[in-house]
Amino acid sequence: MSEPIEFFFDFSSPYGYLAQCASKRIEDESGRALVFRPYLMGAVFKETGRAPLKNHPLVWDYAQNDVARSARRSGVPINLPDPFPVITAGACRAFYYIQNTEGDTPARELARQLYEAYFVDGKNISKSDVVIDIASKGRDSQLIQAGLTDESMKLKLREITAEAISRGIFGSPFFIVDGEPFWGHDRIDEVIDWANSGGW
Amino acid sequence: MSEPIEFFFDFSSPYGYLAQCASKRIEDESGRALVFRPYLMGAVFKETGRAPLKNHPLVWDYAQNDVARSARRSGVPINLPDPFPVITAGACRAFYYIQNTEGDTPARELARQLYEAYFVDGKNISKSDVVIDIASKGRDSQLIQAGLTDESMKLKLREITAEAISRGIFGSPFFIVDGEPFWGHDRIDEVIDWANSGGW
Repeated sequence: MSEPIEFFFDFSSPYGYLAQCASKRIEDESGRALVFRPYLMGAVFKETGRAPLKNHPLVWDYAQNDVARSARRSGVPINLPDPFPVITAGACRAFYYIQNTEGDTPARELARQLYEAYFVDGKNISKSDVVIDIASKGRDSQLIQAGLTDESMKLKLREITAEAISRGIFGSPFFIVDGEPFWGHDRIDEVIDWANSGGW
Repeated sequence: MSEPIEFFFDFSSPYGYLAQCASKRIEDESGRALVFRPYLMGAVFKETGRAPLKNHPLVWDYAQNDVARSARRSGVPINLPDPFPVITAGACRAFYYIQNTEGDTPARELARQLYEAYFVDGKNISKSDVVIDIASKGRDSQLIQAGLTDESMKLKLREITAEAISRGIFGSPFFIVDGEPFWGHDRIDEVIDWANSGGW
């Protein structure tokens, strides 16, 4: 059986959101499962001295237009939120908590809801109460709250950041197909081709 | 008649080289002419505080693999040169000198030769004697040498850098189609679609 495709992303990344919207298509066209791996790009920036898009004025002007244009091309709604970017440690912890307790499918559905809350509805998902509100639909909010502050979830996030750096992963979205790294929403067709062809 | 597509690039940019290799395809598939506009990305970096790919270790590791992979996908040869990147003021001046004295077609052919010298044959095109050697084929090398040091060519480069900054152009390749900016070799299909459809 073919190996799954790893999908690294940051919940504060607009291109990560667009890639998440394409996740079903990637799986359908590649015949591979996607493994969702949210992480904190900011933690990698700190290690590598890089800075968010917004810190580079010309790039940021370009990116705002490009994000909107890319979303229109994909037929996906997007509203660039304010504040942006935000630190999404709580969103990541909620994801991994649901993954641990309920499995991949509910965790992926939560990822979709978190992205949509931020990039469509403009909710500030850096705030714990916002994350708890989203993750608590159909669940005991006390348990979610406990999960968010659980030491093992904090450790999980530190581990995935360290893993990203050690494996050369720094962006969002960032895909790994059979060991081959692909950075960017605009590489989705290459991800699919690589998965199908075994590379070129 | 449709407006031409502006094609900004730096002679030291591997993705600019790959885009130049695709220039005929872009023109054929878009039904538009390309206007070649070499410039010095480094001068824009200075203004905007950005840094070359090579200064970010994780990004640079990724980019070396991605450049080679993108070239294989396009069926184009590439050898990442050493030293890299280099300052290509002389190459730009030679391009504009030939454009002024002989017109667009010979200037484009020179651009192709300069890119090939650097990214296929590993010649250091930051050196004046290398640029003069390439540009002098079938020409009087004394005239080329005079062109490279001509004040009007130096002014041309300062002007195009200022123009790039004022128009929000910062990368290589960077295309403008009917006022719409597209950054990156991986946006070539979008450039063609935008030119054909009038946008989305």
